[in-house]
Amino acid sequence: MAAWSELLAGVRGVLLDISGVLYDGGEGGGAAITGSVEAVARLKRSRLKVRFCTNESQKSRADLVGLLQRLGFDVSESEVTAPAPAACLILKQRGLRPHLLVHDGVRSEFDQIDTSNPNCVVIADAGEDFSYQNMNKAFQVLMELENPVLFSLGKGRYYKETSGLMLDVGPYMKALEYACGIEAEVVGKPSPEFFKSALQEMGVEAHEAIMIGDDIVGDVGGAQRYGMRALQVRTGKFRPSDEHHPEVKADGYVDNLAEAVDLLLQHANK
Amino acid sequence: MAAWSELLAGVRGVLLDISGVLYDGGEGGGAAITGSVEAVARLKRSRLKVRFCTNESQKSRADLVGLLQRLGFDVSESEVTAPAPAACLILKQRGLRPHLLVHDGVRSEFDQIDTSNPNCVVIADAGEDFSYQNMNKAFQVLMELENPVLFSLGKGRYYKETSGLMLDVGPYMKALEYACGIEAEVVGKPSPEFFKSALQEMGVEAHEAIMIGDDIVGDVGGAQRYGMRALQVRTGKFRPSDEHHPEVKADGYVDNLAEAVDLLLQHANK
Repeated sequence: MAAWSELLAGVRGVLLDISGVLYDGGEGGGAAITGSVEAVARLKRSRLKVRFCTNESQKSRADLVGLLQRLGFDVSESEVTAPAPAACLILKQRGLRPHLLVHDGVRSEFDQIDTSNPNCVVIADAGEDFSYQNMNKAFQVLMELENPVLFSLGKGRYYKETSGLMLDVGPYMKALEYACGIEAEVVGKPSPEFFKSALQEMGVEAHEAIMIGDDIVGDVGGAQRYGMRALQVRTGKFRPSDEHHPEVKADGYVDNLAEAVDLLLQHANK
Repeated sequence: MAAWSELLAGVRGVLLDISGVLYDGGEGGGAAITGSVEAVARLKRSRLKVRFCTNESQKSRADLVGLLQRLGFDVSESEVTAPAPAACLILKQRGLRPHLLVHDGVRSEFDQIDTSNPNCVVIADAGEDFSYQNMNKAFQVLMELENPVLFSLGKGRYYKETSGLMLDVGPYMKALEYACGIEAEVVGKPSPEFFKSALQEMGVEAHEAIMIGDDIVGDVGGAQRYGMRALQVRTGKFRPSDEHHPEVKADGYVDNLAEAVDLLLQHANK
């Protein structure tokens, strides 16, 4: 691995994944990852620009930010790039009316969207709402469309809660793709459009930005493909085998966000 | 399309798919497809050998045969090749102890199988039991294994019940494959081993046999790849687009089993 000073030279902006980097979800909302509250605070006091870039699709942005603030994080809604608002923009632009297979917690993000007589399906991390009945309904809606359009808010394989690994939306996206013989449009990481809007909102070019995440494919691989640097933290869904992933190699691996911020404050923006 | 006399020459044995060919499942057990009860009876009175080759994995063979008999079909348990008994054989041969994600209706087929301390996962068409919780449990079992082994009883995309199209086991197999980064072993059509055992039990070589099914990929494509001929019926899950499938072309398309049997009795075994 090259020296950190070389790896982090010229970084002006930092995109932070939330789940598995700031906190692990779970009972009672979850728990902050040790050192992450302070790490975010130090980062925001630095000259580096910071933005939160999440695939969280069970909760509305307001609920997610409320939870993070209760855990002690300095974060506001306007600093968060999340897939549900991005999906609403696309639906409006293309005049699409979705059938929603989403968690109740995120439904309010779609309040302004016409869902009558659906001509597409949107799935998000629905958790317990991924029942057979709900999946079958989404499938039937797609099969009745002449040109079935499926949006998936992210395509993560799983995430970590305090109680263990949990299936994310990606497996259910794959299930519907296979059932209907179609390919979903992913809204969220690792889609290039999603990174693009997060960088625009931060006002930083891809080559000046670094992504910090726990997902070797969605965070690290996605950011690198968009021309950013990327670190993987050994928290959240990280597994030791990620460091030998057949397709993706992070620019660096750090134990947690606190270590990443130590290194950034020492070496970045120089 | 070549003349039927040419297409069916030399056929000595007939493999019949059950769901969508003999009957459509649904409320109260489902309903026989018009003409199929008589068609089976005529076929069994002929010189042709007949065997039932199903991917049904919600019900035990005993329950399935009981249902078919109540619908008027002449069929016995020993005439049916089904994936659950085939899976039990493989599990015993390889000393595997499965975690079962299956419908309660088929659980009795696994009565003789040790399911303690599981070292593999078996999924079948679990219907309503494909809850998020059950899928997550199967996922967690696989992720804890050093060499995760997943068996899927068939990989059908969907089937037709009297109330409409229903998701089959295939989409859920794809979901677990993606979540765990593995490839499942399919027990059932279109696996070559499954056709092989059905043909052996019927005592007919592949080139002398014809498969009749409603699934263009699982029935028709699978049988053809094993060296058999195959007809698709326009009942069950058949959709008009199947006749223009990008990869599979049936040797013939017939409106229903009754038409297939008419043609077979006229042209086969000559």
